[in-house]
Amino acid sequence: MGDIEFLATHRQELRRGTVVLACLLALRRPGYGYGLLDALAAAGVPVEANTLYPLLRRLEAQGLLVSEWDTSEARPRKFYRTSPEGAAMARELQTEWETLGGALRRLESSEGDNE
Amino acid sequence: MGDIEFLATHRQELRRGTVVLACLLALRRPGYGYGLLDALAAAGVPVEANTLYPLLRRLEAQGLLVSEWDTSEARPRKFYRTSPEGAAMARELQTEWETLGGALRRLESSEGDNE
Repeated sequence: MGDIEFLATHRQELRRGTVVLACLLALRRPGYGYGLLDALAAAGVPVEANTLYPLLRRLEAQGLLVSEWDTSEARPRKFYRTSPEGAAMARELQTEWETLGGALRRLESSEGDNE
Repeated sequence: MGDIEFLATHRQELRRGTVVLACLLALRRPGYGYGLLDALAAAGVPVEANTLYPLLRRLEAQGLLVSEWDTSEARPRKFYRTSPEGAAMARELQTEWETLGGALRRLESSEGDNE
């Protein structure tokens, strides 16, 4: 049924906007991409691996994450950490999230007023 | 400075996800596209006209909005209203919004836990 499909799409769009913020918050403690996938899913923001890994590289290129190689095991693993710039960005995005939440509450309680 | 540009992009992405929900809430009272632009901006969810108008047509095609022509003035104007399906969708998306908010709060307070 079409409605279900539209719901999935609209819900996905809502969620997509929060993924950057979720990563920046989660990676204030350093983490591997793989562990982050689990942490995001456990927190209620499931993200696909092939969405997350390019996103982590993009956020690193923007200076919002920094990465290091953990060479303590046979196979080196890259782990990421939120930079001070990333933490500042997370605060800005949290403020935006609150602003949007306020806007949605106003629209809900006013039952529209747009003529 | 790059940081400002990235902030604009990430903030925009956060906002984009809420536009459908904002429209469905606002149009529980019938409104013209033009009036809706003002109402959304006033509520704190500014949307460009060339984003909003195609979106309204798409939501109508999905059965989430219904439209009628107001022919009471010289130039007929189309006005939109949220359908019962649209109102149900808005409730689902509000639930998703709350879920995401909870996830973000958990990620914030745990300071990450993803190794």
